Amino acid sequence: MPFFGVGLTLLVLTGSSFFVLGAYYQHHDFWHKLQQLIQEDPYAFYIREKLYDALPLLNLNCREQSVGNGSRMSEIMKYGFPGLDDIRVYSDFVLSYDRRNRVAHWVYEHLRAPCVQSNGGGASRHEANYQPDMSVPSNFRADVTDYKNSGFDRGHLAAAGNHKCHQTHCNETFYLTNIAPQVGKGFNRDAWNNLEIYVRELTERYGSVYVCTGPLYKPKRQMAGFTEVENSRRANGKWCVEYEVIGENTVAVPTHFFKVITVESKLPGGQPYMEAYIMPNAPISTNTNIRNFLADIREIEHIAGLQFFNGLRRSFFFDTNYTTTPELYRNFQ
Amino acid sequence: MPFFGVGLTLLVLTGSSFFVLGAYYQHHDFWHKLQQLIQEDPYAFYIREKLYDALPLLNLNCREQSVGNGSRMSEIMKYGFPGLDDIRVYSDFVLSYDRRNRVAHWVYEHLRAPCVQSNGGGASRHEANYQPDMSVPSNFRADVTDYKNSGFDRGHLAAAGNHKCHQTHCNETFYLTNIAPQVGKGFNRDAWNNLEIYVRELTERYGSVYVCTGPLYKPKRQMAGFTEVENSRRANGKWCVEYEVIGENTVAVPTHFFKVITVESKLPGGQPYMEAYIMPNAPISTNTNIRNFLADIREIEHIAGLQFFNGLRRSFFFDTNYTTTPELYRNFQ
Repeated sequence: MPFFGVGLTLLVLTGSSFFVLGAYYQHHDFWHKLQQLIQEDPYAFYIREKLYDALPLLNLNCREQSVGNGSRMSEIMKYGFPGLDDIRVYSDFVLSYDRRNRVAHWVYEHLRAPCVQSNGGGASRHEANYQPDMSVPSNFRADVTDYKNSGFDRGHLAAAGNHKCHQTHCNETFYLTNIAPQVGKGFNRDAWNNLEIYVRELTERYGSVYVCTGPLYKPKRQMAGFTEVENSRRANGKWCVEYEVIGENTVAVPTHFFKVITVESKLPGGQPYMEAYIMPNAPISTNTNIRNFLADIREIEHIAGLQFFNGLRRSFFFDTNYTTTPELYRNFQ
Repeated sequence: MPFFGVGLTLLVLTGSSFFVLGAYYQHHDFWHKLQQLIQEDPYAFYIREKLYDALPLLNLNCREQSVGNGSRMSEIMKYGFPGLDDIRVYSDFVLSYDRRNRVAHWVYEHLRAPCVQSNGGGASRHEANYQPDMSVPSNFRADVTDYKNSGFDRGHLAAAGNHKCHQTHCNETFYLTNIAPQVGKGFNRDAWNNLEIYVRELTERYGSVYVCTGPLYKPKRQMAGFTEVENSRRANGKWCVEYEVIGENTVAVPTHFFKVITVESKLPGGQPYMEAYIMPNAPISTNTNIRNFLADIREIEHIAGLQFFNGLRRSFFFDTNYTTTPELYRNFQ
């Protein structure tokens, strides 16, 4: 009889341990495939927390693993996706592509001091070429011929000068998905360039800066038969959105561009600092201080149909606002 | 010794069967949670095939189950998503919402004969009220006040008359996410209404019709200082997109509207028939035959930035085109 007892115990023990082993095997196998899917598919990436929640075993363990294995994409998108339309992941920036306008909705970058310095990494923009991104369906793809004789510069959204650590990073900023038609003299080569330089200064000073750049198609008051000056004086004209489209592929010329900048504090546990800019896609006189273009992030959200820092309390970001650059440099650490 | 042999066999058998049991338990639990996620989350829904592929056990079984449990959404979206921006699932139609323009990108419906007949189901549009969809963030939400005194009708994209089987279905077509500013006289109440009636006739005749409806913001040739007539005569004017925006929430007034119609054959295994329409959001004279507005689906795709029947060969749909309605009725079965 005791023999049977031992046998029974042995059976139960074996059964239960193999049950756990089977469950673990199944879990592990699925976990592996899921990780791969999340790496490859932006939609899977976006709902990854929900997918992890669906995993019954070792739930905590999985989350930790995922934090440990964080890709460059998860670093760049730390403050959330402003929108989810046609997400495209490049090696050092992430963008959402607007198939209707053939210009990105937004481009997100995470800048670090070593990669923005003039002597940083050695990547050179002279080795890079503007080129269409062939992964965009041809019907929605901008081409270099669209910009020819258009009178507009091929303006970078993620600036080439922000990605000097690897030649590949720099080259990828020349994909036309990251390019928008910009007024050259007085804007792309001047005021907008100054704003980009300012972002790099912030990066060198504070070490880690997140910047989201995109186009705006801003409504303006307008009435048929009146000039623009007359219209701006009228109280009850219609509001219209109006923008040019260039080339065979009708690439939209944005009326304005925005930047949303998040500067991380150097202090351990310090809160980040946020500011936003809107600049018209037009010549801006040389002496204009860029802080004249400081904008309310909610205005950008309203015009662009985007949502920033989704899920984080706004007060977290709006606590501090500095009216001058020296004031910012003095007070934010 | 034979006793040990029997014992060992018993142990191995128990171990392996409990291993399989454990794996199955784990699989079943995850499967259940995954199904729930796919039902609730449109992104999960979109990548469901990939998620199923990641499931190691009973792969075939899972797919079959999912087909068997097909939701109304999977029926409506049978021919694929034209785009994936801000997908919103209602009880009898699915739409993609354009947060920048406060009008849907597209609305997909699956029409069946019993629900479009004038005496069908008993749902009445007189019990329904126009109302904002509170699930849209306030920053991107259209409101009834936006349409007041705008001079435009609140035009349905998914027509109320297509959803007569349940009062809820009918009511939901009155959410402002399904509404766009339309010219009333000569368009919404006339030519556009005729097109909607034609779609219902197709449904009554063939039983099952898929229709995708949406706005277009179509570029036109324009030069400053010239009238529209003068501009249309010029060979080298600029191309511009121009549209009005109405109300506090700047709801865009589309320049055109499109419908992409897929009629399923009544013959078993018969190929579906597809046609597309573009109509200007303007008064159209009463006697105009709607077949004058037949359009190439690629033009709609180019202007709207959408892609129809993704993954299906186009020739599948473009095999047949009928120039008149009697011809269509005579030849397509």
